[in-house]
Order: sequence, then C-alpha cells, then structure tokens
Amino acid sequence: MQFRFEIIHKSKKSRARVGRIHTPHGVIDTPNFVAVGTNGTLKALDNRMVDSIGLQLMFCNTYHLLLQPGPDVIRRAGGLHRFINRQMPIITDSGGFQVFSLAYGSVADELKSRGAKKHGGHVLKISEEGVHFRSYRDGSKVLLTPETSIQTQKALGADIIIPLDELPPYHIGSEALRRSLDRTHRWEIRSLQEHLQNRQNQAMYAVIHGGVDPLLRNLSCDTLSQHPFDGFAIGGSLGKTKAEMIAMLTALMPRLPEERPNHLLGIGDLESLRQCIPLGIDTLDSSYPTRAARHGLLLTHEGGIKVGRSEHANHFAPIERECTCWTCQHYTLAYLHHLYKAAELTFFTLATVHNLHFMVETMRTIREEILRE
Amino acid sequence: MQFRFEIIHKSKKSRARVGRIHTPHGVIDTPNFVAVGTNGTLKALDNRMVDSIGLQLMFCNTYHLLLQPGPDVIRRAGGLHRFINRQMPIITDSGGFQVFSLAYGSVADELKSRGAKKHGGHVLKISEEGVHFRSYRDGSKVLLTPETSIQTQKALGADIIIPLDELPPYHIGSEALRRSLDRTHRWEIRSLQEHLQNRQNQAMYAVIHGGVDPLLRNLSCDTLSQHPFDGFAIGGSLGKTKAEMIAMLTALMPRLPEERPNHLLGIGDLESLRQCIPLGIDTLDSSYPTRAARHGLLLTHEGGIKVGRSEHANHFAPIERECTCWTCQHYTLAYLHHLYKAAELTFFTLATVHNLHFMVETMRTIREEILRE
Repeated sequence: MQFRFEIIHKSKKSRARVGRIHTPHGVIDTPNFVAVGTNGTLKALDNRMVDSIGLQLMFCNTYHLLLQPGPDVIRRAGGLHRFINRQMPIITDSGGFQVFSLAYGSVADELKSRGAKKHGGHVLKISEEGVHFRSYRDGSKVLLTPETSIQTQKALGADIIIPLDELPPYHIGSEALRRSLDRTHRWEIRSLQEHLQNRQNQAMYAVIHGGVDPLLRNLSCDTLSQHPFDGFAIGGSLGKTKAEMIAMLTALMPRLPEERPNHLLGIGDLESLRQCIPLGIDTLDSSYPTRAARHGLLLTHEGGIKVGRSEHANHFAPIERECTCWTCQHYTLAYLHHLYKAAELTFFTLATVHNLHFMVETMRTIREEILRE
Repeated sequence: MQFRFEIIHKSKKSRARVGRIHTPHGVIDTPNFVAVGTNGTLKALDNRMVDSIGLQLMFCNTYHLLLQPGPDVIRRAGGLHRFINRQMPIITDSGGFQVFSLAYGSVADELKSRGAKKHGGHVLKISEEGVHFRSYRDGSKVLLTPETSIQTQKALGADIIIPLDELPPYHIGSEALRRSLDRTHRWEIRSLQEHLQNRQNQAMYAVIHGGVDPLLRNLSCDTLSQHPFDGFAIGGSLGKTKAEMIAMLTALMPRLPEERPNHLLGIGDLESLRQCIPLGIDTLDSSYPTRAARHGLLLTHEGGIKVGRSEHANHFAPIERECTCWTCQHYTLAYLHHLYKAAELTFFTLATVHNLHFMVETMRTIREEILRE
C-alpha cells in the first residue's frame, strides 16, 4: 500500500476536514490523536492492548531509539513494527527536537526561567553539518545530521518520517530566527534528498518553522511546499500561550497545500484539540493523556477526575458508565482510587487504558461531528 | 460450594500428594503455587490477566487492606472478590505477620544485623489482648486482636482465612519462644471462636508455630489439630537456611492430619518448592516470581535469565520458544531487554506475566509427575 491522503468531507462551518491517510500498515482516520510511545511502547501498556484500543498512529522518538536499542538492533529485528510488534502505523521524528531540547530546555523551562541549558553540556557543537551531542546513556559522542537522522529512520521503517530541523529557542532575535529558519530549510531538503534515494515506502512530512512570526511561517510554508514532501508537520515554537498558537495556526493553515495531510507536533490537550481541528489540523500528538493517567487524572466527558480524591473511595461504578474501555468494563473507580493510593503499578496500566480509549473515542466523535457539518 | 479437600493421588516415592481444594470460588489443584497480591492486585497485572494465566489462589494481605482502603470500603463493595474483580479463590492472612515484622524486622534483616526494630516505633504495645500499632499511612492508632483480625477478614470475605498469631523473632530464647507459642495458640483459638460465630462459608487454616524446635513444632501441631480448623499453615520462623527448613518440615509433616490441606507461608523459590512438595506441602505462597520479574529475572526451564545482559539485545525470539504465555506469544526477548534498559513500565507487566505463567505451568508439571509416581 502506497502512502495516500484522501479527503472525505470538508466542514461548511470551518476548515475542519475528515480524511483517511493510507499507509503500508493501514489507515489513519483524520482528524486523529497520535499517542507517544517514545521507546517503542506507550508507558504501562503493551502494544497488543494499544491495538485493541484502536490507536491508529503511534509516535516513536528517533532520539531515544537511536541511543537504545540503536538502529542496528531494530534493522536486524526487521524494523520497528516487528521489533515492538505493532501492526498499525507508526510515525517517527528526526531526533532533533530532543537534541535541541537538551541544548535550550523546553519552551516551558525557558518561560519559567528554569535555565536555558537544562542538560546543556550534552550538546557539543551545532554546525551546518548537523549536531554533535553526547549520549545520555553511555556518554559516547553522536553526530546527528539530516543524513544520519534519515538513515536511522530508514532502519526504523516507520510509515511517516520527519526531516531534521533546528529547534531555535523561543526567546530569539528575529535575525537569528531567520538564520535558523534558513538552516532548517537546508537541513530539511537534505533530509528529503536522502529519503528519496530510497523511499522504502515511507512518507516524509516537512516541518514548518518560523516561531510565532507570521511572515516567517509563510516563508517556511512556501519554501517547503515547493518540494515533494508527502505532508506537513507544524513544529518549532508554537508560542507561549494557546492564543498565540491559535493566531499562528489561523494565519498559517489556509496557506498549506490542502491536498496534503498535516500534523501538529506536541499538542494534544483537549482544549487545544477542540480549537485546532476547526483550523484544519489532521493529526496531532501529545503525551498528555497518558502522562495525565500516570499522575492520577482520568479523562471523562465531564472533565478530568482526580482519582486520588477521597470522594472516589466508595464509587463502586466505572469511571464513566457508558465507557467501553477495558478498565471501565472490569473495574470500578473505587478500585482505581485504591490502587492509586496504594501506589500500585497496575494503576498506571488501567488509567492509561482509559485515557487512551477516551482520546480514540473523542476523535471518533469529532470526525462524526465534522461529517454532519 | 462448601470448602472441601479431596486427595486424588498419593506418591509412592514420597509424601507428595495431588488433591483438589474446593472453595466457594472454585477449585485449587494441589500442589500449587500461590502468588501474592498484597493490595488486591499482583504488581503490574490486572486481575483479568491473572485469571487468564490460571492462577488459582491469590494471597492478599489483611494488614495492608485494613489500612487502605479499609474493611468498610471492601464490605460496601460486596467483599474483596467483587472489589478487585477476581472470580477465583483468595486467601488472606491475619495481619500479624506484617505488624510483627515492623516490630522485629524480617528474619533476613535480623540475620544481617540490620537492626531488630526496622520500624520499631510503629508497634506501640503487645499484650494478651493483641497488638497496638501505628498506621504507616495516616499515623492513627490501630488495635489488632484475634477478634478484629477475623472481623476484618470477614469483611474481606476471602475463601481461606488465617487466625492471628504472634511472630517471635528468630533469635529468641527457648523459654520466650515457648511463652510466645502458648500465646499464639490462645490467639488462634480465640480467632477460631470468632470465626465460628459466623462462618460465612470461609475456611480457616491454623498456623503451626514453634520455630526450628522440633518439640515445639510437634506441640503446636498437636494442640491446634485438636480444633476444627479446616487446614494448616506452617508459619513462624522457618530457619535461617533451606536445610533448617527442610529438617523442620521433614519432622513436622508426618504429624499433620493428612486429610486436611496445608500451606507453607512465604516460600516459593523453585529450589525450595522442589524440596518441600515431596514432604507433603499442598500450597505455598511467595512474592518471589513476581518480584524477580520486576528486577529483570525471567524464569525458564534452564534457570533464570537476567534480561538486562547485553547478550539478549539481539535475541529475536521469545524468552522460551515453547512458552504459551502472553508475553512469549507476542514479544521477543530482545524487545523485553530493550524495555528493561529503557526502564519502561511495560516491562514490569510483560515480565510478571511470563514468570507467573511459568509458575502455574511448573505446578501443573509437578502434579503430573506426582500422578505418575
């Protein structure tokens, strides 16, 4: 099966659309939520369970897999799908985001002045060639270039791959941002060239940069859409507030080639999701629902439930009566409360199952809503 | 279904026997391994998975459940089976073991001179009435007596319950051990009287004490077997070496009433198991296989595999080719190695599934071996 994007319906009320991304490992219905399985597993879930929940696209991190177990092991296993036993589609990133996060810290870190270089010592050198950094696992020096990122992603063999980009810090002068953008474009085009030498039935999404500067976002969009990328990811700094992100997307989205799918990187809380999809976002990934689960926040149609609150100790019914997830079919909120209070590992699994199922069902509902618009 | 023990076959080579314990929640084939689910869950597994592995008896700890969520919550839930959604049999202990462990530390602690009173401050007073201790959860004072232990176990509603005993330290003079034994017997008989006021279709196993003194073990056996306990647990100090335990059991086992089932408390490593069953042990519990899993030790017919060893990084086959567990049916040792190295929660689940399945299958094999003897 070749990669192909099919638009089924366009909303008459907004730019939202319902579509299908066809990949070698099956269909991704859009709009859809993409869960993050950094190391080739969603935390606390096994991949058969993830399949049974119906998560159609899983996001794995090249940075982590590059360092452990390394591309050679995964290549020998027959690729990431076989290594982790996942039958459905996978997307991998370039590794750049994590490397630059090490250098600059996350946007949140920066805004909270938690230090611009959280693990700064680990990035050794950034040049036109790429980034030298030190492995957090064994201290060895690693060179990440557009070419090595793509070679690693070829070993992994995900259905959708991402070119190497430079992630500039949020607080950056406009000149420096412009220079970073130009380098990102050069890196992305080198990534594409490397990819096109051996497509391997993978699709590549360009990453649109430009921070919150509308002109730079437009420039990035126009530059990258001239190249045969299969889709577009929206990356870089998305602003320090939801409003900034929405303003940026409102300006950018109409400019993206409509017939190619897009992906919003690293956003997946319910409020953002409800605001971004009407702007035309097809997929978006976040570790929020699974991380929230591990911290005792259960997602429901009436908002988040803090499982540790004592009012739940005697709630001998599922989290939500109508929920069809494994957890709600078999266990009560009172039992989940108990497992959480007792700090049992089983809690992580059962809570993650529920939150992931909630996201899958929420996206199904959103698609149905758009189909009626 | 009334509690009933049925002996199906006796070995001609040893005292080993194959039997069936009938309980209100189904049959326990003996000899069998009993896994420990302290807080009403086996660590990292959900109870439907535990059922599907075929674990016939699960051991829950009254001490922990008394403090969290407390007997009232479990009574309101309709008992422990309903609260944790387990359909198969459960055994609970009296809570005494944990309380006295707090006072004296474990035998291992004591032998390693890690201090006689690990959390000594938590036990406030031991008297003929029972034990006052302080909850590790909220600092409240709790009184555990034969009567309150049984009342708690009535709220939990396990199929098999245990009377309150005193756990003397391993290093104790013979006079003090004798006094402790007498008190234990008085407590156990008070527990039995409390139980018989409202059987609630539960069975009660007496706990044989006496440390490694054969005369005291015999005395304990003879004293307790005059009372209508449904079976016998072998508790107290089992010695500081396997040899001491085996010597004690070799002397004790022929003295136990043959027609009643017995249970060896807190022993379940494979070597002990292979040595104890020929002495006539019917069931034995241990957290060893599940704890070993979490520490990266996978049980196989060729001995334990340390999953973290680099030689497993490229082993693209199950832990054991013939193994029919969920983990071996779906994942390779190489993937488990990776999950372990990446410190993923999913590892705990997959490793525990395998080790528990291994124990269930090992016990099945042992029963088949005895049937041929």
